Amino acid sequence: MPQNDQVILAERPTGMPDETNLVLQAGPMPEAADGEVVLKTLYLSLDPYMRGRMNSGASYASPVEVGQVMQGATVSEVVESRFDGLAPGDIVLGYGGWQRYAAAPGKALRRLDPGEAPITTALGVMGMPGFTAYVGLLDLGQPRAGETVVVSAAAGAVGQVVGQLAGIQGCRVVGVAGADDKCRQVTGTYGFDACINHKSDEFEQQLDAACPDGIDVYFESVGGKVFDAVMKRVNDFARIPVCGRIAHYNQTELPEGKDRLIPFMGKVLVKRLMLRGFIQSDHLERQPDFLKDMGEWLRHGKIYYQEDIVDGLENAVSAFQGLLRGDNRGKLIIRVAPDSPA
Amino acid sequence: MPQNDQVILAERPTGMPDETNLVLQAGPMPEAADGEVVLKTLYLSLDPYMRGRMNSGASYASPVEVGQVMQGATVSEVVESRFDGLAPGDIVLGYGGWQRYAAAPGKALRRLDPGEAPITTALGVMGMPGFTAYVGLLDLGQPRAGETVVVSAAAGAVGQVVGQLAGIQGCRVVGVAGADDKCRQVTGTYGFDACINHKSDEFEQQLDAACPDGIDVYFESVGGKVFDAVMKRVNDFARIPVCGRIAHYNQTELPEGKDRLIPFMGKVLVKRLMLRGFIQSDHLERQPDFLKDMGEWLRHGKIYYQEDIVDGLENAVSAFQGLLRGDNRGKLIIRVAPDSPA
Repeated sequence: MPQNDQVILAERPTGMPDETNLVLQAGPMPEAADGEVVLKTLYLSLDPYMRGRMNSGASYASPVEVGQVMQGATVSEVVESRFDGLAPGDIVLGYGGWQRYAAAPGKALRRLDPGEAPITTALGVMGMPGFTAYVGLLDLGQPRAGETVVVSAAAGAVGQVVGQLAGIQGCRVVGVAGADDKCRQVTGTYGFDACINHKSDEFEQQLDAACPDGIDVYFESVGGKVFDAVMKRVNDFARIPVCGRIAHYNQTELPEGKDRLIPFMGKVLVKRLMLRGFIQSDHLERQPDFLKDMGEWLRHGKIYYQEDIVDGLENAVSAFQGLLRGDNRGKLIIRVAPDSPA
Repeated sequence: MPQNDQVILAERPTGMPDETNLVLQAGPMPEAADGEVVLKTLYLSLDPYMRGRMNSGASYASPVEVGQVMQGATVSEVVESRFDGLAPGDIVLGYGGWQRYAAAPGKALRRLDPGEAPITTALGVMGMPGFTAYVGLLDLGQPRAGETVVVSAAAGAVGQVVGQLAGIQGCRVVGVAGADDKCRQVTGTYGFDACINHKSDEFEQQLDAACPDGIDVYFESVGGKVFDAVMKRVNDFARIPVCGRIAHYNQTELPEGKDRLIPFMGKVLVKRLMLRGFIQSDHLERQPDFLKDMGEWLRHGKIYYQEDIVDGLENAVSAFQGLLRGDNRGKLIIRVAPDSPA
């Protein structure tokens, strides 16, 4: 019987999580109850939201309990089935977590057709990150042709899709990323009109130059100085879908200073801004549209994507740290089983 | 020839405006150009937004220039007409400003029928404040039956209408006001389910008691501690139309402290809040619906209103100070001509 390696939340992290918080250890092999299947994890998705699940406070969802396996979306192979609709060898999208094997109810899984698209895309452009971009930009941001859309974390799994969708809508698309090579990819591969490195000393001047008509839609994933710089340049009636605040996820203390909430709310009022926090899972009624549209865009070469695939569950913690620091280049995925098909 | 008393913005105020900033003086009598009429002001509306117009910074609209007459909506009598559609004796809604006489293009005026409703209501429940409540609550707040709606400045010109509209929608309606007698009126006359005095020492506990199921819609007009207390109690998917921030209009310095903008944005994200700043004049396409609906509600006794009518243009500055302090009881209006009909 193979060993079931698991990454356990051993204690809640303060600041950046590390291998004292997230411990790889041997756990029990799962068994399938009636209606369930046993899954062998091929690919594990690593996503920024996971940092929130490590905290005790209520977020969208209940936190992971201390001592439990870290949660996460997976592409897996069915190795044993007690569910009528799935057979060994089937490839499925599920929520197996940071471990080699998991049991899951068959009806909670979606079978993937490897002939249709690389199966890893179910964790990225055809999965949660792509759907986040689709709902957040199109339904909440409501960009109109000719408007300027600024996308934070533009080279990331969500941002790369947001910008391309905005381009399809006929917008001027300006990305913000944290490295020059990311910016080159954002404009080169993903076709954004401009991309600015927020670590540049001339970040604000470059943002001015890239947005001569101001900013109509800001897709917010990062917070911090990018958010502050964008807020200075928003137009009347700007829309700000708030998808994440990764710059703050590891923050343990708030900076001192003037109370910026008061002038911020004044700006919301005077500029008639719309801010809206969202999570894709509240919008599942749009999934069929998304899968249809995105499938077509991919087939017709309208959307490009990049995945950053790291080998080995034993590297998940350091890869996750890199994700929070912005080291990844595209959608971050752990290849858990070494012989996984694409 | 009667004298044209005018209140001039003599200098931009710092903090609370007073009679050194807003000076009553004799000015020239206006003359009607072709297509214009001369108006005798009967009633002048005083509204919180006017504080913003006294500042130099860009707000919704251009500021009043130093040396100019303060702007404001008026109900006036036509005393001379060079416009085909209006004759002397007609009563009109216009934007005559803080003065006894004004000239205006006839097409910028709306004729009022004194037989249909008291003409002062064109400045209140049937005018800009009522329309602000209608658009802000119904279109942006989108309250559903059974939800809890909290209304700041609940006894004010806008708040009193917001709460009654929320009641018509079948919501639990909780007002917040700054005096016990206001609260009694809010529950007694306007029929809110509860009203809390934000100056009470037990304000937060009382808000908890009044909102056992949390807060789904917050109609924001005041900012300050009311906003802070509400934000602690909002439910997932709460909607916050932002109509004003009167607690901050005279603020000259921001408080020091932690940066509250960061946790605020975190809450927007995690609770999937919708914030939206608005001004009624961006939604004029809804005016016909508003006039029809509100006219019917008034005729059928579904909506009550209170006006706080102060005699004399010479009292406009002190009345406006009182408005910013919360001294008014209902829609604040200056009766400029002593013999004005109702």
